[in-house]
Amino acid sequence: MSAVPERRGFASDNHAGAHPEVLAAVAAANEGHASAYGEDRYTAALRERFREHFGADAEVFPVFNGSGANVACLDAATRSYESAICTEQAHMNVDECGAPERIAGTKLLTVATEHGKLSPDDLGRWEHRRGDDHFPQPRLVSITQSTELGTVYTLEETRAIAAAAHELDLLLHVDGARLANAAASLHASLAELTTGSGVDLVSFGGTKNGLLFGEAVVFCRPGLGEGFAFVRKQLAQLASKMRFISAQFEALLADDLWLRSARHANEMAARLAERVGDLDGLEIVHPVEANAVFARLPRAAIDRLLEAWPYEHPFYVWDETENVVRWMCAWDTRPEDVDEFAAAVAEALS
Amino acid sequence: MSAVPERRGFASDNHAGAHPEVLAAVAAANEGHASAYGEDRYTAALRERFREHFGADAEVFPVFNGSGANVACLDAATRSYESAICTEQAHMNVDECGAPERIAGTKLLTVATEHGKLSPDDLGRWEHRRGDDHFPQPRLVSITQSTELGTVYTLEETRAIAAAAHELDLLLHVDGARLANAAASLHASLAELTTGSGVDLVSFGGTKNGLLFGEAVVFCRPGLGEGFAFVRKQLAQLASKMRFISAQFEALLADDLWLRSARHANEMAARLAERVGDLDGLEIVHPVEANAVFARLPRAAIDRLLEAWPYEHPFYVWDETENVVRWMCAWDTRPEDVDEFAAAVAEALS
Amino acid sequence: MSAVPERRGFASDNHAGAHPEVLAAVAAANEGHASAYGEDRYTAALRERFREHFGADAEVFPVFNGSGANVACLDAATRSYESAICTEQAHMNVDECGAPERIAGTKLLTVATEHGKLSPDDLGRWEHRRGDDHFPQPRLVSITQSTELGTVYTLEETRAIAAAAHELDLLLHVDGARLANAAASLHASLAELTTGSGVDLVSFGGTKNGLLFGEAVVFCRPGLGEGFAFVRKQLAQLASKMRFISAQFEALLADDLWLRSARHANEMAARLAERVGDLDGLEIVHPVEANAVFARLPRAAIDRLLEAWPYEHPFYVWDETENVVRWMCAWDTRPEDVDEFAAAVAEALS
Amino acid sequence: MSAVPERRGFASDNHAGAHPEVLAAVAAANEGHASAYGEDRYTAALRERFREHFGADAEVFPVFNGSGANVACLDAATRSYESAICTEQAHMNVDECGAPERIAGTKLLTVATEHGKLSPDDLGRWEHRRGDDHFPQPRLVSITQSTELGTVYTLEETRAIAAAAHELDLLLHVDGARLANAAASLHASLAELTTGSGVDLVSFGGTKNGLLFGEAVVFCRPGLGEGFAFVRKQLAQLASKMRFISAQFEALLADDLWLRSARHANEMAARLAERVGDLDGLEIVHPVEANAVFARLPRAAIDRLLEAWPYEHPFYVWDETENVVRWMCAWDTRPEDVDEFAAAVAEALS
Repeated sequence: MSAVPERRGFASDNHAGAHPEVLAAVAAANEGHASAYGEDRYTAALRERFREHFGADAEVFPVFNGSGANVACLDAATRSYESAICTEQAHMNVDECGAPERIAGTKLLTVATEHGKLSPDDLGRWEHRRGDDHFPQPRLVSITQSTELGTVYTLEETRAIAAAAHELDLLLHVDGARLANAAASLHASLAELTTGSGVDLVSFGGTKNGLLFGEAVVFCRPGLGEGFAFVRKQLAQLASKMRFISAQFEALLADDLWLRSARHANEMAARLAERVGDLDGLEIVHPVEANAVFARLPRAAIDRLLEAWPYEHPFYVWDETENVVRWMCAWDTRPEDVDEFAAAVAEALS
Repeated sequence: MSAVPERRGFASDNHAGAHPEVLAAVAAANEGHASAYGEDRYTAALRERFREHFGADAEVFPVFNGSGANVACLDAATRSYESAICTEQAHMNVDECGAPERIAGTKLLTVATEHGKLSPDDLGRWEHRRGDDHFPQPRLVSITQSTELGTVYTLEETRAIAAAAHELDLLLHVDGARLANAAASLHASLAELTTGSGVDLVSFGGTKNGLLFGEAVVFCRPGLGEGFAFVRKQLAQLASKMRFISAQFEALLADDLWLRSARHANEMAARLAERVGDLDGLEIVHPVEANAVFARLPRAAIDRLLEAWPYEHPFYVWDETENVVRWMCAWDTRPEDVDEFAAAVAEALS
Repeated sequence: MSAVPERRGFASDNHAGAHPEVLAAVAAANEGHASAYGEDRYTAALRERFREHFGADAEVFPVFNGSGANVACLDAATRSYESAICTEQAHMNVDECGAPERIAGTKLLTVATEHGKLSPDDLGRWEHRRGDDHFPQPRLVSITQSTELGTVYTLEETRAIAAAAHELDLLLHVDGARLANAAASLHASLAELTTGSGVDLVSFGGTKNGLLFGEAVVFCRPGLGEGFAFVRKQLAQLASKMRFISAQFEALLADDLWLRSARHANEMAARLAERVGDLDGLEIVHPVEANAVFARLPRAAIDRLLEAWPYEHPFYVWDETENVVRWMCAWDTRPEDVDEFAAAVAEALS
Repeated sequence: MSAVPERRGFASDNHAGAHPEVLAAVAAANEGHASAYGEDRYTAALRERFREHFGADAEVFPVFNGSGANVACLDAATRSYESAICTEQAHMNVDECGAPERIAGTKLLTVATEHGKLSPDDLGRWEHRRGDDHFPQPRLVSITQSTELGTVYTLEETRAIAAAAHELDLLLHVDGARLANAAASLHASLAELTTGSGVDLVSFGGTKNGLLFGEAVVFCRPGLGEGFAFVRKQLAQLASKMRFISAQFEALLADDLWLRSARHANEMAARLAERVGDLDGLEIVHPVEANAVFARLPRAAIDRLLEAWPYEHPFYVWDETENVVRWMCAWDTRPEDVDEFAAAVAEALS
């Protein structure tokens, strides 16, 4: 268990550990007995905390992980014959092993996009089948904020999608595994990004932003969370010792830890983009608006870089055909990690 | 967040916190970056550790919680039209919100029992419908060890059930949320209780025995775990920062912490049973073989005791009709908690 | 394809063929083109016909078979975490291969009964878990009318169950694969048996009462059928050439064919019970109120009878342990079939 | 119930009724009692009949409809975390109300095509995720023959897809709702189209080719059908009076009725294409290889034609954006229907 990696990797923000303040909060919550399944005072306090951040009507349900949050949202918000609209690149479409379909029973209707963002015009393309019992009826739109491609919906864009969704009687869900990064990017509050922009329900990420584990489902409007407690339990996302999720989120949200961490990760991505953006042979393929850099470079350079970087899993090749790589920055990525990595990229390209 | 409860409750072993050694292990694992989804060195080490405890062929898959472990076991081990046999009192039958049926798609065939234990003779009662396409075909037997009623299957009993199960081409699953308590009770190793007794797959509990969170699915025989990685992911039980589950289990299993903690909890239950067993008006209704005491006492006494004990949720009334209560002891229950609780019981009965 | 069986069997009313009037209706509907999926004039007419029989608010959806009707009712009427109450002997519990659980996702909460009939008192036994997110919440009660054991709920009994169900916010479903037999038995109309007694939704049987195939889901109250068209399609119960189901039901219901056929089947069962009821060694174990006779007789006699009766599948041994057999009569069972079968029973017993 | 439509519509081949020979077979099978659920002699004979047509190892399971056949094939052939590859236009992707996903639990991986046909190269595009537990593993390819766009896979094309599929350990399924039309088009036997070309399992259509109702699942290779009887029952596709499906298929397959009917429908489509193909303002957009004609024409002409043709539902506008219509011919479409319809098209365009 020795041999701390000398360098951070750029594979994923979930390669980072937990923030020390989070760990301290867990230790502090580890005192004596507490009622299980959310009947504890840490979770009671957290309910208030989320109302501060998401609006007075917000209702929060801590869960274990992002897949659980997303699938539970789909399951709760759609009837068995209803479908959900998302991008082709959406995590729920390509990285949850078919759970939305098999577990929530929700068919996904997907839209090809250039930079991972839906537009309001995309929502109506199945409306000609409204009422046709041969087709699963659209009921929900899911956008990812910040997106799987490191881009961010502006507040105006979110509001426009929400308006289009509600016009068609669709709910708007935000897969916010990296919502904090979007908030940092836009200099906006979590409420402005969600409730204030017309969002109905959110998978709010904690793990990638410095928790040991833990995500939260947030319903932004009264009544939407009805029955969700049962859904959470049935999907095995009800933690018995819930105080240990709640205490982590409290550490994240009580002060501005969530924002500091996300802002730092974003800054590291911007720094990396700046360092490598002008290198010959490298092209940044999506706007760098959050904590990810997507770049195209020659396959040989990719291979050299993978070999050279002193960490077990340096980064992902995002698109093997297009030779596009993804470099993620985390709350604990250090400037020197970025600078040395950028140097390694330059070296690999030369 | 002040005001540590003065007394432990007896509601559940999941009201206890995490063992300090477990928390220390989490902190120690929180160094730098580690690959996600189990590709880290903590999880690699854990795979070896489980082989020490469950046998050289054992294959372990850490998951978030007990419901997740049980449902994933059912999902992986049964085809869509196959069923599972368990007791009426089984946690999977009465406390998982219908997840075995809805999520794993597995109908449960239940057996009424006196003390929560199946017998080999119970397994054949649906065999007259073998091959009948109107009936979901039995494929798995699930026993809980120690049981929901605080009793323990002897090694002989487990072996006999395993033999009967295999005779009928049924797999034997153990819901081992409290397997450590059974091992402590029987002075047997985990391998003797499982692999050595013919068990095929196990939900091995960590949370109730001093983890923050975390359970483990263990396949005892080669080949049984094929495909399980996909099942775990699809059921949203794949932790991204898995090192933090693995490090906890390592703390539990590397030394004898698992056994010390379970033995202590058992001893506290035995102490409680001894203190209250002879009280007039109180009857212990199941053999006290692990860390639970089930007692029948007058409703008025129950109410007085619930009122008197200085903890938010003192214990569960297990059977409202029969006035049976459940008192669980945990790894952190102190002798003085037991003694004062026993005195409060005596007081309530007087 | 020659060799008409000389005798009817008593295995099931679904061994009977289609009534000639039904076949004639199919032939008559086989003229030219008709819109598919229920947009035809036969189905339009049928909607009116069902309102005559089930009440002015009744809404009918033809489906293929009884399993489809039952599972679709459960799927439409329960959310994913809701459960349904029925008897242990209910067809949906023991003869649908786990479809209620796997397909509709509905856990069944079962009640042991003597003669296959629930009582109002049975419905409340899970109410102590109302609101407990560990337990699937009861939402529907399903009774079978006439029951799997050949008994019939009186109108008073049905009304009492409906009242108890609605008191607990449960819907009342009737598995009416043999509802016509119950109506004939009680000299009551279909509306009196259902809508008029507080029933909410019905699986109304056609196949066992002389159709080639075809059942109907009937919603008795406005609004309950909302969304059902999608459920029916998703469960593959939407017939493309629906006119051929609708025309059959029209033949059944336009005139009194449904009642004539059911009454005849009931009379044949009564005749059989009368012929064998006093035989030494034979005991009729359930009241003969519809078209089934359940009898206990020595195993050797059962075997002789199975051997002796000149039909490929004479009847079912209902309970191998108790030596109870089931003898079903159909719309086409002839008096001479009954009399000769009764004689064969007497012979087997002698 | 009078007023036979003067003209056939061109909306769908399922607007046609049943062939008189089929109806006669049903009437002939309606004699006395027969065992239910396929234990009858009609179904026994049918098993042999299908072996004649699909090969000596073929195993047939009659079901109610095409959705049921397709969903049951997916359910039986894939594990819960496995996916299936098909075209975007596949009926199972756009016309089964999400049943493949919700009921079979199978995510569909779709391919955009020009004329509704997959190519061998399409199958490998998800192979880079083989073994990745975040992605549902491809297990089956489904092609539609003849396709939803009226085109036909040649034997060579089918063989090439089968070879590519098997190379990747994928099963090849044929949605053969109109397999007879493909056979007629290719002058090939059903066995050549399926078993002989490497196909593994087939949804073989009957309804659109002149049955009242009824489709058949055919497993082409030994062992593949293991367990399917349970799947069929659980999906509510097991007919109790199965003799009435079997007798219809016997009528279809015993003589060459299946081929005569399909060939006639194809000829009518060819006749229609010939009559309208040269009209100004009309473009035939897919090769007319089976019984469908897809044409693009001005929206005003479409509306005039819909208005003019004397049948309740003349045809479908297939693509509202592209002004593409679908004209289907059936076994009972008459030359004069085609000629008068072609005249009406010309009139609408003028």
